[in-house]
Amino acid sequence: MANCLVAQSGGPTAVINASLAGVIRANQLNPVYDRVFGGIHGIEGVLDDQLYDLTDLPARELDILRQTPSSALGTCRYKLKRGNDADYRRLVEVMDAHDIDVMFYIGGNDSMDTVDALSEWAAANGCAKRFVGIPKTVDNDLVPVDHCPGFPSAAKLACQVTHATRLDYDAYTRPEVFVLETMGRDAGWLAASCCATGDVDLLVLPEVDFDRDAFLAQVQRKMDETGACYIVVSEGAHYADGTYVSAGDSANDGFAHAVLGGAALTLKQMVIDAGIAPRGVVQDLSRAARSSNFAQSLVDMTEAYELGMSAHMRSADPAFTGMVVGVAPREDLAAPYNARFFAGPASAFANYVRQFPAEWILPDYQGITPEALAYFAPLIEGEPKLVYEHGLPATITPFNRR
Amino acid sequence: MANCLVAQSGGPTAVINASLAGVIRANQLNPVYDRVFGGIHGIEGVLDDQLYDLTDLPARELDILRQTPSSALGTCRYKLKRGNDADYRRLVEVMDAHDIDVMFYIGGNDSMDTVDALSEWAAANGCAKRFVGIPKTVDNDLVPVDHCPGFPSAAKLACQVTHATRLDYDAYTRPEVFVLETMGRDAGWLAASCCATGDVDLLVLPEVDFDRDAFLAQVQRKMDETGACYIVVSEGAHYADGTYVSAGDSANDGFAHAVLGGAALTLKQMVIDAGIAPRGVVQDLSRAARSSNFAQSLVDMTEAYELGMSAHMRSADPAFTGMVVGVAPREDLAAPYNARFFAGPASAFANYVRQFPAEWILPDYQGITPEALAYFAPLIEGEPKLVYEHGLPATITPFNRR
Repeated sequence: MANCLVAQSGGPTAVINASLAGVIRANQLNPVYDRVFGGIHGIEGVLDDQLYDLTDLPARELDILRQTPSSALGTCRYKLKRGNDADYRRLVEVMDAHDIDVMFYIGGNDSMDTVDALSEWAAANGCAKRFVGIPKTVDNDLVPVDHCPGFPSAAKLACQVTHATRLDYDAYTRPEVFVLETMGRDAGWLAASCCATGDVDLLVLPEVDFDRDAFLAQVQRKMDETGACYIVVSEGAHYADGTYVSAGDSANDGFAHAVLGGAALTLKQMVIDAGIAPRGVVQDLSRAARSSNFAQSLVDMTEAYELGMSAHMRSADPAFTGMVVGVAPREDLAAPYNARFFAGPASAFANYVRQFPAEWILPDYQGITPEALAYFAPLIEGEPKLVYEHGLPATITPFNRR
Repeated sequence: MANCLVAQSGGPTAVINASLAGVIRANQLNPVYDRVFGGIHGIEGVLDDQLYDLTDLPARELDILRQTPSSALGTCRYKLKRGNDADYRRLVEVMDAHDIDVMFYIGGNDSMDTVDALSEWAAANGCAKRFVGIPKTVDNDLVPVDHCPGFPSAAKLACQVTHATRLDYDAYTRPEVFVLETMGRDAGWLAASCCATGDVDLLVLPEVDFDRDAFLAQVQRKMDETGACYIVVSEGAHYADGTYVSAGDSANDGFAHAVLGGAALTLKQMVIDAGIAPRGVVQDLSRAARSSNFAQSLVDMTEAYELGMSAHMRSADPAFTGMVVGVAPREDLAAPYNARFFAGPASAFANYVRQFPAEWILPDYQGITPEALAYFAPLIEGEPKLVYEHGLPATITPFNRR
């Protein structure tokens, strides 16, 4: 029997290790591979022959791995470039040296492109190695899936923080604005998900060119009508000319505020400078959004785990290569949620950015449509029963630190 | 039978409503008071005769109130000034109008001072009204208690985010620093608590005058030795001359960086400017730290609830006024944790700031001593079983929004 290899790439998520655990556990249930090796620091470590034998990880450690956030194998930003023959040959050399037939790559758009490129290259060069993708990304910007593992947990944390900070904000009588900033450079899925709590007054997405005057008019209106304005902004919000909102607001207001540190700070200052509110509070979710095991969605964790298993199980078919597993788009958002897994060619996943749908965005920064709410609702459902140690969710020592 | 009044003041916490629930529930168990009124928006609303009858809140709503973060009655920053006879007389007028004998005030240093001032004034003016304090503050800066309700939950969230973001940070190979910022203007308890996870490389507290060169030398050393440096800074960190670190770093580096938005951003830029690391990541806990019901400490929630009950029960004694209930300091930090409640004169609680003890701070930003770790450990233990609705911890509609 030959062996397999699993590696993780790109930004970590709260459940990327659940997919890793799924691959390992599936092989314990049906040892299609003799050994399951983990590649340390993604493709970077694999090229450097840094592997870790995960085959016999005890059940207890697998349970903890599943609830450990971040990439337990370590990650990388290194992209295997199409046409980089030397890298491809080196990868095959390492795989050969360890008798590895199949590589599972857990990652986002770029990693799915790597799976596509590697399988193409293998076919063109008569190489029998196979490559399988397992998607993850908190940005939720992959096609052609319903959503990406990692996103629901990030959305759940974002919703929890939104609701908690809205309650905090509402406790006061003094006039001020609240601005929450989420990750999301090109797509506003995470920012939009905050609306699921019903707490958001205004939503600023990268999908809509930012219009300062129109935005400020809405802030003024909310303050006039309710004495409050809770705003959520995606880090990637930008003007029509492509300038990020986070780049500051010196152009339009006659002042030269050098505002660094994000879109939320800029919006807060903009509101204050416009004289709409004398003060504001900023909350930036930053990294906490994507690595918070204490806010894992049970739906997300289960799907991430089972997608890992599914990838392993499907790979028993010797023709299975250049494919990615995923959750199929829902046909009816009103129907009870029931994730359907599928496998599709990596080329369909690679290098497309799926933005938050224009038809789900209400005009004038008023948030999202009922259909969008129906999309988000089931994804954040359920809480895994976490193992705690010393008051914190238990985690394993990452393999790249052993 | 006469009635009682409960109000909340100052910054919200994750468990300030548990104390409110404790007062209400105690009166249901033993109806010392005919009615339990809630004062809307602290003393501000009480002076304006805005009361809400909480007497018969159903058990189910009490359970949800207990897990609802922020101040369910609304809060205020208004301080009843000593000598402000008009305010005092107005307060008594409102209390008389509703046959209220006793007022419970849940708050921080200022509120405990209000309890002290009001009870003094009542004694001096032959007024039979009584005033009782229930402490809360995420800053943990009250004497003479072991800790303040609200702090353990804030610390638990801070620890969860520290551990999760450290795992996220450790997944990468590229050289960068990570800087986490916590609340804490005058006292570094919350920042120091992050060290309980074992993940913090350097700790910058307001208790130690900031020395730029000494700090950067330690960052350099950590980067050289381990390739990583995870820093926690309290928002109140300052130079010897009192200038906040968050005010920027233009003085010392020859550049004119206008860094706004906090101590963490400043430290990150300082490290980059010094050429120690080419990039850095900032995470600001901001408001999420104090209102996160999804990270409540069971110890904290239980104590906050029981302190509310204790205050109510002790108030049955007609001589009980000008007093505050609290958790007594532990005599032996190595002994199994066992909270002992006591009541002390409000004057002992008011207007002192308890800083993080100098003898618990390691030199050169190296964190905290084993004794400090022993202090924090039991406080973050345990997780309340939360009621969830639609994927989020259920909350009640705040009384100030009804």
